[in-house]
Amino acid sequence: MMKIDLLKDAWARFMEARSFVLACHQRPDGDTLGSALGLAHVLRLAGKDVVVISEDGIPDNYTFLPESDTVVTSTDRRDFDIGVLIDSEGTKRIGSAADAVTSSKVHACVDHHLPSGGFGEIRVVDYHRSSTAEVVYELLEANDVIFDAVAATHLLTGIISDTGGFKFSNTKPRTFEIASKLQAHGADPAMIAREVYESRPIRSMKLLGRALGSLQIDESGRVVWATISKHDLDELGATDADTDSIVNHVTTVKGPKVAILFRESKPGSIRISLRSRDGVDVDRVARAFGGGGHKAAAGCHVEGSLDHAVDVVVNEVLKWME
Amino acid sequence: MMKIDLLKDAWARFMEARSFVLACHQRPDGDTLGSALGLAHVLRLAGKDVVVISEDGIPDNYTFLPESDTVVTSTDRRDFDIGVLIDSEGTKRIGSAADAVTSSKVHACVDHHLPSGGFGEIRVVDYHRSSTAEVVYELLEANDVIFDAVAATHLLTGIISDTGGFKFSNTKPRTFEIASKLQAHGADPAMIAREVYESRPIRSMKLLGRALGSLQIDESGRVVWATISKHDLDELGATDADTDSIVNHVTTVKGPKVAILFRESKPGSIRISLRSRDGVDVDRVARAFGGGGHKAAAGCHVEGSLDHAVDVVVNEVLKWME
Repeated sequence: MMKIDLLKDAWARFMEARSFVLACHQRPDGDTLGSALGLAHVLRLAGKDVVVISEDGIPDNYTFLPESDTVVTSTDRRDFDIGVLIDSEGTKRIGSAADAVTSSKVHACVDHHLPSGGFGEIRVVDYHRSSTAEVVYELLEANDVIFDAVAATHLLTGIISDTGGFKFSNTKPRTFEIASKLQAHGADPAMIAREVYESRPIRSMKLLGRALGSLQIDESGRVVWATISKHDLDELGATDADTDSIVNHVTTVKGPKVAILFRESKPGSIRISLRSRDGVDVDRVARAFGGGGHKAAAGCHVEGSLDHAVDVVVNEVLKWME
Repeated sequence: MMKIDLLKDAWARFMEARSFVLACHQRPDGDTLGSALGLAHVLRLAGKDVVVISEDGIPDNYTFLPESDTVVTSTDRRDFDIGVLIDSEGTKRIGSAADAVTSSKVHACVDHHLPSGGFGEIRVVDYHRSSTAEVVYELLEANDVIFDAVAATHLLTGIISDTGGFKFSNTKPRTFEIASKLQAHGADPAMIAREVYESRPIRSMKLLGRALGSLQIDESGRVVWATISKHDLDELGATDADTDSIVNHVTTVKGPKVAILFRESKPGSIRISLRSRDGVDVDRVARAFGGGGHKAAAGCHVEGSLDHAVDVVVNEVLKWME
């Protein structure tokens, strides 16, 4: 739990600065975008000069976010007072935005991932939280920052996106409490859920169809997985972003405690998303392949064919489940 | 909004009684079951003799509810002090349970539907609420009734079920607030969401995959549809019940205002589910084929091949959309 002093100190240092660059992580999700846009919005309300960078732009289902058109994919500026990592622990995940952040006078990190590197002099990090948006909310509340429906929409989107619509086990009583306050501030949870989860291009739905067609369960019934080949992507004109929420459908299968999605993003390079329930720790599995994440949701890469990746990762999961 | 006096008076009258029959409505959902079981649990904690009736029993995805095995499908008793309708406004929807309720000394209604008949001397009804479970929660809170994780699980299930997991527009700030309190009392929203929404057999998910693989949009981009052949069902060992929620995934496709699922339940007999948004009336379309329903959700049958059914129904939809 973040101490209120820490939140007050962080905000005081933000208020002393004039210009900010907020960096979203690559393959941005609703939490990195919502948290960055929400924080940017309130900082701008306080008269600050703020640039939000998302190297990979804005996925289709997040273009509804107010002010998402202000997000840039890069900047040449190297004169920011404060450079902030949003929803990522290190500069590795922000790509080319790293230069603008690291060249800033002061570094900050606003995040809910398990701290690894400890980036930044100003750290607003709480890995007990569902989402970075929840962390941003606490920062605002602790400092009695007045905000509006725009920022509330940003932050509720972050929460809804990172909790799977209050369905994941990272949803806590405080998460609901904050959702209540954000809705009271003017955010519309029904609209957000529709935009985030129920507005997908047909190619993306067809890709989901293929992934579900590929579903397999291991002999012991403990692990279920789906695969998406580069060929699937090419044939449907789909992109890697279209694969994003597919793993959540894999978790829907009754029985197994671990669900995995294998994606051949590039020929010979397999991107893997793991989800678990009932306390199975997939972060440890992902770490075994140089990746990481949370206990119930993690990711990694494996070089080689899809078959090879399925083989080694499923075996690793089963090993940890012994 | 229910007045606190009304809630206090209702509870006082409950506490004066010794025996209760609580009736769920037919084709029970998570709200009628969760509300009845939750109220029954706290009444039993208060030493009352309580029978819960659900004429249609407990659907598979609600058997996880604690004490669901105490629910009966009928009772011969006609000696209850109070008979309560749970989540229905009149006795029409409770089937044969009506006798036990109406023969009770005092009648009550705990509900969130728009009042029509005004059943009962004790009325705990608020149609501004997401769910009857929310109404039951207010009744307990207003009377400082101490309850446990069992009742909290019942009530949170009612809320999650009737709000589509906080996705429908009936979700209000107070809904989230109550969800927060119920979780703090020991209910597990992730477990509940999984049981209610995400516990589908793999054959059912593979069938969804095939349906999504078949997605098509008409030239004008206004109608999207999926087809499931008898062959698909047979090959996957799936049944018609496995097709139930698939149309909701078809509606997820971005763009079209009408979504249709065509199912060849029997060779040569096509069952059709239509869904619409933004006020398009699919009831009229279904009526043209001898079916019907509501404006935004309707169904019908067409004899012949899948191709034939797609042809005539899509054309009919487009005709009505001119």
